[in-house]
Amino acid sequence: MNGAETLVKTLLKSDVDVCFANPGTSEMHFVAALDQHPDMRCILCLFEGGATGAADGYFRMKQEVATTLLHLGPGLGNGIANLHNAGKARSGIVNIVGDHADYHLKYDSPLRGNLDGISGSISHWTRRAADAASVAEDGAAAVQAARAQGGQIATLILPANTAWDEANGPAEPMAPAPLKRPSNEEIVSVAQALGEPGAVLFVGQGGLHGKLAQLAGQIAAKSGCELMADFLVSRIERGCGAVDLIRLKYPIVENVELMRHVRHLVLCGANRPVAFFAYPDKPGTPEPADCRITELCGPDMDYGWTLQAIADELGVGPSDRPALVPLDLPTTPTGGLTLEKTGAALAALLPDNAIVVDESVTSSPPLLSATNTARRQTWLHVTGGAIGLGLPCASGAALACPDQKTVCLTGDGSAMYTLQSLWTMARENLDVVTIVFANRGYQILHGELANVGAGQAGRNAARMFDVEDPTLDWVALAKGHGVAAARVTDMDGFVAALRKGLATTDPYLIEVIC
Amino acid sequence: MNGAETLVKTLLKSDVDVCFANPGTSEMHFVAALDQHPDMRCILCLFEGGATGAADGYFRMKQEVATTLLHLGPGLGNGIANLHNAGKARSGIVNIVGDHADYHLKYDSPLRGNLDGISGSISHWTRRAADAASVAEDGAAAVQAARAQGGQIATLILPANTAWDEANGPAEPMAPAPLKRPSNEEIVSVAQALGEPGAVLFVGQGGLHGKLAQLAGQIAAKSGCELMADFLVSRIERGCGAVDLIRLKYPIVENVELMRHVRHLVLCGANRPVAFFAYPDKPGTPEPADCRITELCGPDMDYGWTLQAIADELGVGPSDRPALVPLDLPTTPTGGLTLEKTGAALAALLPDNAIVVDESVTSSPPLLSATNTARRQTWLHVTGGAIGLGLPCASGAALACPDQKTVCLTGDGSAMYTLQSLWTMARENLDVVTIVFANRGYQILHGELANVGAGQAGRNAARMFDVEDPTLDWVALAKGHGVAAARVTDMDGFVAALRKGLATTDPYLIEVIC
Repeated sequence: MNGAETLVKTLLKSDVDVCFANPGTSEMHFVAALDQHPDMRCILCLFEGGATGAADGYFRMKQEVATTLLHLGPGLGNGIANLHNAGKARSGIVNIVGDHADYHLKYDSPLRGNLDGISGSISHWTRRAADAASVAEDGAAAVQAARAQGGQIATLILPANTAWDEANGPAEPMAPAPLKRPSNEEIVSVAQALGEPGAVLFVGQGGLHGKLAQLAGQIAAKSGCELMADFLVSRIERGCGAVDLIRLKYPIVENVELMRHVRHLVLCGANRPVAFFAYPDKPGTPEPADCRITELCGPDMDYGWTLQAIADELGVGPSDRPALVPLDLPTTPTGGLTLEKTGAALAALLPDNAIVVDESVTSSPPLLSATNTARRQTWLHVTGGAIGLGLPCASGAALACPDQKTVCLTGDGSAMYTLQSLWTMARENLDVVTIVFANRGYQILHGELANVGAGQAGRNAARMFDVEDPTLDWVALAKGHGVAAARVTDMDGFVAALRKGLATTDPYLIEVIC
Repeated sequence: MNGAETLVKTLLKSDVDVCFANPGTSEMHFVAALDQHPDMRCILCLFEGGATGAADGYFRMKQEVATTLLHLGPGLGNGIANLHNAGKARSGIVNIVGDHADYHLKYDSPLRGNLDGISGSISHWTRRAADAASVAEDGAAAVQAARAQGGQIATLILPANTAWDEANGPAEPMAPAPLKRPSNEEIVSVAQALGEPGAVLFVGQGGLHGKLAQLAGQIAAKSGCELMADFLVSRIERGCGAVDLIRLKYPIVENVELMRHVRHLVLCGANRPVAFFAYPDKPGTPEPADCRITELCGPDMDYGWTLQAIADELGVGPSDRPALVPLDLPTTPTGGLTLEKTGAALAALLPDNAIVVDESVTSSPPLLSATNTARRQTWLHVTGGAIGLGLPCASGAALACPDQKTVCLTGDGSAMYTLQSLWTMARENLDVVTIVFANRGYQILHGELANVGAGQAGRNAARMFDVEDPTLDWVALAKGHGVAAARVTDMDGFVAALRKGLATTDPYLIEVIC
């Protein structure tokens, strides 16, 4: 049994059974080992950003680590942007990156580069396998690292000879270290503080969906505090039956307004909210100057235990019911197409339990607003602000949850980054409706040019903001990747296309000219 | 005048006047400064790998540094693979990468990451601008670094406040340090050695085209040595009138045969040839065990001076004529489509002075072979082995040389990495014919699986090697990006499509089903 085979066996023993792959020569023995283990599901991505973004979406929906299989430094480099997003989401991912046989690294071969440096710049944990005998344990340690601290990027560099040399056998799974918890004194103090005027429980990560979100809602009901959450959260339950809370927005000036009354911000599962960018003459943080901030529990800590401990301290019981979002469905709009009406159509038609991946950037606010009281939905956001996450993340989420409908909302500019994921959706028959808001450019940058005080776009700027001349044809792009598509220019067209996309379980793309 | 404007002025003063851009908010003041300077040509790329690959192609053809404009760590990350190729080609590139305002970096904002680490892993030179007053000098130093040692990757990190704060004015251009040269003793020794049996002058970089290639040919004619060059060279002149030399190939076993008679390998402008990958039971280097290797002059040294010094030492004169490739054009083939016949059609129809970017991987050998005695051509190869260079590099080369026809030969797997460059070709009306050899997958990996001794592909492997189910539709993909295209399945179709593509100056794509 060679090193590669012990690694695959170890991953499977560790309950890691999905591999988003784009291999090359240096990974061939790992590929051969995968051939011997059909219980490891291999998903080919035609670009590495598609693999890393899919692993992110998979973890967010399933809370299980997937592997990626990447080819040396350039392969890992191509995956960096979505690893950045995954890291901010605290998604656990194991990257298996092949390298030259160690004895070949003394030569300046074409693909030799600073793979360790690239990995170190983006991974929480990097290890270079020393020899075939240790590869299995390295694999178990990589999974352990990926599961640690709520989820991490772990990269195992696999020199080709460590894959093909003889090894002993698989390693046993290794449990991650227990998560850090706040002290009892901190719990007691916070539980008391949440009852004071202007107190906000600022929740993140797993506290935004499922039982923990309900628990956070009960804490708010019992204590009288407000619940808030950040803008680009990794996963949040919305719509009917979801816990009602205040979401921050993209513009810092709007968040300053939203937080004007806040006296004490208690962070649980979340980092301190900050401005997305610094702007001249605008604040970097939204809370008032005299607002107290208690960093009770970071996203890398045990926020589940922490929320329960606060609830216990407050004596929360079944009668403390969280404020829940009611169901209030609009009728499907007709006539000319607007983002507001597009949002209403989404709200009217989204099925219960849909997953919505939102990379629609400037188009997002009216869509978010319109779907607030629609059926129950789970939204995934671009946590790290690196565009090109939408299509890959949607494919990973759909793979994780084949019984739920996934809808990917994306700008045309962002979708272009990783459009190759459309092919993976087609090959794997993923149940994803992709809605491309084709506003023909990076429209956010027109606003940002003004926001930073640099005025209006002239010719050079407009040529860099506007994706026109020629316009992209998303129906053709989808067809090229094997995905059926429609272009719509009015609400009747959008509603018909959305109904069609929601009715099929094949991937479908709608280009919205807006 | 703010920092950004002093930087743009400095770049222009340093004769850097092309910017391959994909900016975001942190680069808005730089964009505004570009607006004030229309003499800086801005080329929008819809993915950063398109920008870095284009800058590589631009440098290879024009020997002039271009800038890229990228957005924080993820933007630079997306450009890594083609920066890797550019670094191996020794192409000079200045990356301008925006970052948060320095006072905002204390917050964990979505886009904050290890930008310096990412840059350090791929750049020869990295500097973070300290303040607006120093930005101009930083820019001049970046250009100097990009021009040093034959060409380097220089990355200037530009915190937003260093762009928008007031500054003084542009900086003066800075000349790079002189290139290192071999000693006179080494020249004398090598000049003598080249006359001995089994001596090979192994040439790289600028020694493979133009006057220096002719000079190398004269040295060979005078001394009696053989001329050889590596497989993945950055730029080489081929066809009628080019200096005749022996090119290495991809498979190490073939190179062992090609070098079996070599007794002394003198490197000039080239690194030592090595196997692309290590394979079990195959050698890592091609030369015989008793072959002497003289590392006379690396690709980062003054190979122009070195070749001239050898020629002077040998007393090379006008009567020492290099062996040149004759013109021998085939007729255009008909009937069923094969790679050999496709190569013959290329050879018959390629116009004089065409630029050929070759990323056709497994399809390449018969195309190279068939075009050996065609009209004069310049070929650019994937120097770093990171696929996804072809389309970007072709767009940069075409932009650098608008009066020459550029032909991009690419596999379907490699073209998918950076297909967004098709849009840039359309927008800039670049004179590029892209020929996609649609063999429906990463066909090289079937061979590599066997080469590393891992046997035949089973189901998991085949699903990762074959881009089928669904097949990609390259005519639709091209149309989606605004590029006209044709699909061909026989030689008459290919010849007609190639004639059409060569006749127009608009970009055109041919999907060859092979």
